[in-house]
Amino acid sequence: MKFTINQREMIYALNILTRAISTKTTMEILKGIFIEAKANHLTMKTNDLSMSIIIEIPALVEEEGVTVIESYLFNDIIRKLPDDAITIEKKTDHISLICSQSKYKLLMMDDETFPKVPEQTDGVEIVINQSVFSNMIKMTNFAVSRDETRAILTGSLLEVKNNVMKMVSIDGYNIAIKKVVLQDAPDASVIVPGRTLNEIQKIIGYNVDDEISLVIGSNYITFEFDNVKIISKVLEGEYIKYEQVIESEFGIEVDVDNREFYDAIDRAALMANKSRSYIVIFDFEKDQVTISSQSEIGQAKEEVEINNTGKNIRIGFNPNYLMKALRVIEDEELVLRMTSPVRPCFIQPKNNDSYEYYLVPIRINQ
Amino acid sequence: MKFTINQREMIYALNILTRAISTKTTMEILKGIFIEAKANHLTMKTNDLSMSIIIEIPALVEEEGVTVIESYLFNDIIRKLPDDAITIEKKTDHISLICSQSKYKLLMMDDETFPKVPEQTDGVEIVINQSVFSNMIKMTNFAVSRDETRAILTGSLLEVKNNVMKMVSIDGYNIAIKKVVLQDAPDASVIVPGRTLNEIQKIIGYNVDDEISLVIGSNYITFEFDNVKIISKVLEGEYIKYEQVIESEFGIEVDVDNREFYDAIDRAALMANKSRSYIVIFDFEKDQVTISSQSEIGQAKEEVEINNTGKNIRIGFNPNYLMKALRVIEDEELVLRMTSPVRPCFIQPKNNDSYEYYLVPIRINQ
Repeated sequence: MKFTINQREMIYALNILTRAISTKTTMEILKGIFIEAKANHLTMKTNDLSMSIIIEIPALVEEEGVTVIESYLFNDIIRKLPDDAITIEKKTDHISLICSQSKYKLLMMDDETFPKVPEQTDGVEIVINQSVFSNMIKMTNFAVSRDETRAILTGSLLEVKNNVMKMVSIDGYNIAIKKVVLQDAPDASVIVPGRTLNEIQKIIGYNVDDEISLVIGSNYITFEFDNVKIISKVLEGEYIKYEQVIESEFGIEVDVDNREFYDAIDRAALMANKSRSYIVIFDFEKDQVTISSQSEIGQAKEEVEINNTGKNIRIGFNPNYLMKALRVIEDEELVLRMTSPVRPCFIQPKNNDSYEYYLVPIRINQ
Repeated sequence: MKFTINQREMIYALNILTRAISTKTTMEILKGIFIEAKANHLTMKTNDLSMSIIIEIPALVEEEGVTVIESYLFNDIIRKLPDDAITIEKKTDHISLICSQSKYKLLMMDDETFPKVPEQTDGVEIVINQSVFSNMIKMTNFAVSRDETRAILTGSLLEVKNNVMKMVSIDGYNIAIKKVVLQDAPDASVIVPGRTLNEIQKIIGYNVDDEISLVIGSNYITFEFDNVKIISKVLEGEYIKYEQVIESEFGIEVDVDNREFYDAIDRAALMANKSRSYIVIFDFEKDQVTISSQSEIGQAKEEVEINNTGKNIRIGFNPNYLMKALRVIEDEELVLRMTSPVRPCFIQPKNNDSYEYYLVPIRINQ
């Protein structure tokens, strides 16, 4: 195997491929990047056993073949090389890399032991704009559970029904739901690992107008865009029946400016986090919410103008959860709906019902 | 005590003052910021027992007085407040802080126990351009020893003799010396803690054309610029006689491009650091230096054009030390002078003898 490729092309590929390199694995081969040189292109693969990434890039192939290179050092070297042609050749016991006045010999890993990328045998296809999909992930992924004991919640529900695609994340304290309308999309339902979605969001970026294809099968989901293909396992089991905890009738409805509300919580959180209580108390009155917190070294009190069409309520929240949700909502105005200090608070952009966020309050002494 | 100050003014002061707040201290009072409100200004102080910072800023003082506020939370709150007037008032058992719709109560520390800023009773004054002084620190501070067992080397020698100011840092592996010419400066010699110099460099910045005054005494050194005064202890004892290890005759003289040399070492260092050997081998020939390193997973070989007017030499260095020095030299061309693989290598910008750097080689198997 021998090929020549530009340093920039290789950096582009590595930026994407390294997202399926696990830093914690004890299986050395999973730290490798599989490279196949064929005709006028390379097919490069990484695989962390939960997710595989395959990327095709053009290259000047002098001799076809396959190899696996340890990714960490390879990645570091490529990044520091000049923007020039790199020639990589498989020798009997090592990989040779030459770029300008730089010559490297690198460990060759056993390509026979590189785990096979799974074959997805079933599925329905949905095509969606990359930035729309990226935004769905951004608005829900922060609420994915990190608790491996309830594995199903470490994934997000991705559901298509009657041409509406819904992404739902739940971690026991909060629920985030984002909906988009599709055209002529088949119904489907799958639970995608939160980590897969997180990595995909980083790869496709936020401002890309191209489309991404999702093929949703019973065991795998495949994402395909540009020259990249990502195949991820899906989580097996039934997703939590979250509709049961969501109420549709709220006695209290509050309009508030997102930025002002966020900034006030951000400051009050300093005090709440200092005491490690992580409780901020909200006193919603008619025209004003008072946000307060305390620690052994002080007290914070913030006031923000609101418009409350219901009765007054005193309710406590973990400010750090609340801020995560407010950060992903780009709309200026918010609506908060509440029932009682022990029932979830529902938050939505004022003029946009495609996003729903529910936060469970913290019980406080009245 | 009651005063009003703009949020931006307070941030400016805190940016400087927090540099003398120790994060590791068990003496709670050292985490405090001493504030004295008088006439139309505040005098604020911090003191980590090795260094004190005093800053004066204008404020609207309604009631004179003193207090000490715990710095961490105060700092965080001030930064998150809107750019608006902040009113701070000392109450019977707490400090009240009001800014727009934000109200805070903060712990009041006992100002009686705040350590006194030392009185410097002797000294000679030297005035120097801030950016020139900052550059002296930058070019030498990286070579200050972190080894507390030879405390004297954790400081830099600052010496003025015949209108030349010299700053010298040594850590047993390398020596960095930077000289500047002054006009009508009195002779002086003092050892300043490396940490003090590091903090001062951060405070005065790099592109400031104003002057800084140094008052060098036998126990303290005082730095004064703008509205800031920093008083630091000096290190007691005699500085190492570094001239003895420095040689003036070198058989080998090499001219090399700083950037090309640095980039090649930077790549070869990846391999050397991977193996944790931290050795890169340099084969200096007539027109070329070959830079090589190896680890269990590969080998690196880099070639850089040079002009060597002496004999060939194979010599080993810790690439991380070498890179630190090359990074602070802004000149494009370097001269390296060597005698043997076991004697220090001398590095200097090609057309600028105000800087000298010596690096002890690592013994290698020939």
